Amino acid sequence: MNLNAIQKKLRDFVGARNWEQFHSPKNLSMALAAETAELLEIFQWLTEKESKEILNNDLEMLQVRHEIADIFIYLARLSDKLNVDIEQAVLEKIALNERKYPVGLSKNNAIKYNKRDLDDLDKSKE
Amino acid sequence: MNLNAIQKKLRDFVGARNWEQFHSPKNLSMALAAETAELLEIFQWLTEKESKEILNNDLEMLQVRHEIADIFIYLARLSDKLNVDIEQAVLEKIALNERKYPVGLSKNNAIKYNKRDLDDLDKSKE
Amino acid sequence: MNLNAIQKKLRDFVGARNWEQFHSPKNLSMALAAETAELLEIFQWLTEKESKEILNNDLEMLQVRHEIADIFIYLARLSDKLNVDIEQAVLEKIALNERKYPVGLSKNNAIKYNKRDLDDLDKSKE
Amino acid sequence: MNLNAIQKKLRDFVGARNWEQFHSPKNLSMALAAETAELLEIFQWLTEKESKEILNNDLEMLQVRHEIADIFIYLARLSDKLNVDIEQAVLEKIALNERKYPVGLSKNNAIKYNKRDLDDLDKSKE
Repeated sequence: MNLNAIQKKLRDFVGARNWEQFHSPKNLSMALAAETAELLEIFQWLTEKESKEILNNDLEMLQVRHEIADIFIYLARLSDKLNVDIEQAVLEKIALNERKYPVGLSKNNAIKYNKRDLDDLDKSKE
Repeated sequence: MNLNAIQKKLRDFVGARNWEQFHSPKNLSMALAAETAELLEIFQWLTEKESKEILNNDLEMLQVRHEIADIFIYLARLSDKLNVDIEQAVLEKIALNERKYPVGLSKNNAIKYNKRDLDDLDKSKE
Repeated sequence: MNLNAIQKKLRDFVGARNWEQFHSPKNLSMALAAETAELLEIFQWLTEKESKEILNNDLEMLQVRHEIADIFIYLARLSDKLNVDIEQAVLEKIALNERKYPVGLSKNNAIKYNKRDLDDLDKSKE
Repeated sequence: MNLNAIQKKLRDFVGARNWEQFHSPKNLSMALAAETAELLEIFQWLTEKESKEILNNDLEMLQVRHEIADIFIYLARLSDKLNVDIEQAVLEKIALNERKYPVGLSKNNAIKYNKRDLDDLDKSKE
């Protein structure tokens, strides 16, 4: 994926409309949350099984694609404004998660994964 | 960005812990929304100006980086499960937005950008 | 429920700390969304069945109670700032929904309830 | 506010349409989050000042009223399903917040209120 090219396209799009004035990190965080909620809305009354079968419904999938694109667009914008290298941040986070959830303790362990326990109450909001 | 490599790493991470059972599209949409809300929380009491100045605060920026990574991780997972090519979806969406917001009508036009009009009221969700 | 008394208590709480400066409708909408996401987080990896059984888990229910309270608190604050009579707004909305979802068409009709139709696709947000 | 009467009305509405099958706590938490995001959307490109001035715009306020009602409706439903007494939960939470944010330390203290500091990293997700 050519992320730089996408971020450049978005900068040009926003610049041409003089919309940078609206794209503070605060506002972008709101737009991002609003877009993820549109995905929630697609899935809210579906069972988990039905949510998997959405793959077979072209009309629903078109909508899902659009929402995924919208979320990515605002995430790319925010990262651009705040000089965050997404790929590097993701690789660091995966490494962190590997230490946090060792396979031996986590494997097949729905309870560990599901439940907030006392440890969770201590856990930082990352 | 090597998105395929990231998605492969995430598949391996999830597979090793036998967590695929939790990663239905429905559940991933919830996790995605929960992560974006953690970004909201960072910015909720800041002014827009302060939200821009977060760049100068290393501790806050570390947190922002982690949240951006978390959001990206769930978006990459969801796209992987639903066979969505994010880059292609984003390019299509940008092209769509260019038709939807022509420069001539949208330039410098906060009202156009800000306000929901009567059509929007008709689409209230229930 | 004595909503006026709750709103008075919250005004006093906020006033004593000089926090009205942070409680713009924009910021309150962010806090509200952040709190609802904490509920999402509790339920995100549970099956629907497990989400019903949470009733039997005192520790989880304590957390659910706190999140429900937090959501209500910000909703009460926002309504107070914007002079919205919640009860009246709710009764109007229920009446509206009764016209929108007539029993004859909606009964037992998951499809009607679940699916976005073509009209819905027209209302994509951008 | 007659919360019991509202919850009864909602139970009847849902029962008449045979929609209880969709109203698991998990699904209701998703619907709640989706509705709060519609409020976010109203405010996302507004300045804080403009968000206060929305009071003077009847059309926008009608929409805000509807969103507040929708959020309340799902919160009332969820509380009904999980036997949570909202008023009691709110009063407990306010008492908790009074201990957590003592006036002497919190008054006029934007930094304390704004910033996540090391204490915040320890703080439970309530």
